[in-house]
Amino acid sequence: MDIDVPRLLGGRRRELARALTLIESSAAADREKASQLIEQFNPTASNSIRIAISGPPGAGKSTLIDALGMHLLGLGRRPAVLAIDPSSPLGGGSVLGDKTRMPQLASDPRAFVRPSSAEGHLGGVTNRTRESIAVCEAAGFDTVIVETVGVGQTECEAYTLVDFFVLLVPPAAGDDLQGMKSGILEVTDLLVVSKADGPLLPVARKTAADYGAALRGNTRTGIVGTPGVHLCSSVEGVGIAELWHVIESEIEQRCESGEFGERRRRQAAVAVDRAFEAVLQQRLAADERFQEARRQLHAQVAAGELSQHEAARRLADVAVGLRARETV
Amino acid sequence: MDIDVPRLLGGRRRELARALTLIESSAAADREKASQLIEQFNPTASNSIRIAISGPPGAGKSTLIDALGMHLLGLGRRPAVLAIDPSSPLGGGSVLGDKTRMPQLASDPRAFVRPSSAEGHLGGVTNRTRESIAVCEAAGFDTVIVETVGVGQTECEAYTLVDFFVLLVPPAAGDDLQGMKSGILEVTDLLVVSKADGPLLPVARKTAADYGAALRGNTRTGIVGTPGVHLCSSVEGVGIAELWHVIESEIEQRCESGEFGERRRRQAAVAVDRAFEAVLQQRLAADERFQEARRQLHAQVAAGELSQHEAARRLADVAVGLRARETV
Repeated sequence: MDIDVPRLLGGRRRELARALTLIESSAAADREKASQLIEQFNPTASNSIRIAISGPPGAGKSTLIDALGMHLLGLGRRPAVLAIDPSSPLGGGSVLGDKTRMPQLASDPRAFVRPSSAEGHLGGVTNRTRESIAVCEAAGFDTVIVETVGVGQTECEAYTLVDFFVLLVPPAAGDDLQGMKSGILEVTDLLVVSKADGPLLPVARKTAADYGAALRGNTRTGIVGTPGVHLCSSVEGVGIAELWHVIESEIEQRCESGEFGERRRRQAAVAVDRAFEAVLQQRLAADERFQEARRQLHAQVAAGELSQHEAARRLADVAVGLRARETV
Repeated sequence: MDIDVPRLLGGRRRELARALTLIESSAAADREKASQLIEQFNPTASNSIRIAISGPPGAGKSTLIDALGMHLLGLGRRPAVLAIDPSSPLGGGSVLGDKTRMPQLASDPRAFVRPSSAEGHLGGVTNRTRESIAVCEAAGFDTVIVETVGVGQTECEAYTLVDFFVLLVPPAAGDDLQGMKSGILEVTDLLVVSKADGPLLPVARKTAADYGAALRGNTRTGIVGTPGVHLCSSVEGVGIAELWHVIESEIEQRCESGEFGERRRRQAAVAVDRAFEAVLQQRLAADERFQEARRQLHAQVAAGELSQHEAARRLADVAVGLRARETV
């Protein structure tokens, strides 16, 4: 699969979709091509705004992104939407398939929506999304919205990909707060309570107050200040313009203070480390000497001749000595 | 922290708790001691039964484990319970803290319950749990129950730790099945619908039928046959003895067919690969030459002098050449 770079840089959505498919591929030849493609762009220098919209299933992430995306189009911005779905290492997709999501945004030619992503990518879903963001920006999309599905470690890792992390929660009774991990609050820049309309409005207000209290009691690592709490109703379109205003003002402030650039530089360092791990994994997978040693050590452990840890240490010896001439 | 091995092998719960704390520690000295401790046991050869109880929050995992554990004690078995909680890489625990869980089992001197686990362990939560299982077995616990919290990749990885994977789901309307990822069903040996009592009994029956249909339509990787579906009520104590009977019969069959030993050998190979990754990570973290190269490459990427991918490749060159004399 070869990507037509001028067409991609020209913002052709079909070429962008093909580039993302290339990035999602686990075939070695595709990985090489994807690396060569990504290398042409400098994600650290991009002028885009990267936002994560995260939250439990049923919080209304897709509906909010649909409404926010349409608002951004009205402001002349060009939104692209990517989904992070950690699901499983063995199979993909939900049992009964995806519903149609973001109907307005997906049908607008000025926006780009990637409905779902393939599974089991070498180096992990976060690495792939990092590359996908760079390609969307290269294609001229200036606001990249990353939707993360489910709550867990992968979701928190999305924090290393974006400038602004929004946690969306549905109106809920106090007890449900218990299911929310403090880890996710530590990476949250803004907490949004959805469905603040009709009969749910009082519950939404109560939920916002409860979260506000929980957030103030929470010590945050690496982020200054307590995240705000915001109410919105995607159905009634209430709070969407205000949400964008909050995000944009905060980003502007951080650009002035230098915090914005500092966060991107830290993220670039993380990206190098993650890409290193993926490159190393590929090299070891392709190295016949390493794989032969690995097979032998597995057999010795299965036969009870060697402890798992000793086998692991010997395998590490082989790995760090691959370029050496004098080692056997 | 030094572990008194004779006391541990004698089944002293306090020494077992100390050993697990050692395993959970990320301090380099503790890692070394933990490795030396683990090396004395051969987890491949153990006669224990290892079970994962997995499922979404609110499914009733703790209540089921409490009831199942008490049943096992009645049969003369010695259960140990460990929890896998992937939560977040940044912080631990839920916002409002843990409720008291498994009240019967936790207070019985014949059982061992490890209520929760620390976060951010080098090499990941799955590796740590693998080591913890080995230590529980060394201390004489012959049935290790691993409770996995949340649904995601870590939960599927628990499959590489256990002989039998139970997925526990609450009674639910058909729409909620959509949230269930097919990946988790692929690693499930038995699906259990909880809370099959009182007014929820008809819903539980319907849920079991729906899952049965979904499971039959699902192609499983690496496991032969379709998993069964079982109903239980931990509150009324219904289905607990039957659940254990199903697990025990299946394990007996697999022991006779050789499948049991084959699965453990495959798991030992996975364990070697994971331990290798952890050992390599530790070596690289401690290697001054590697860390200096890494800092320089980060700086070059931040300055826009180098692409992230090229930096990653150069770092991989350094890693595989660490033992070489002739490389710079």
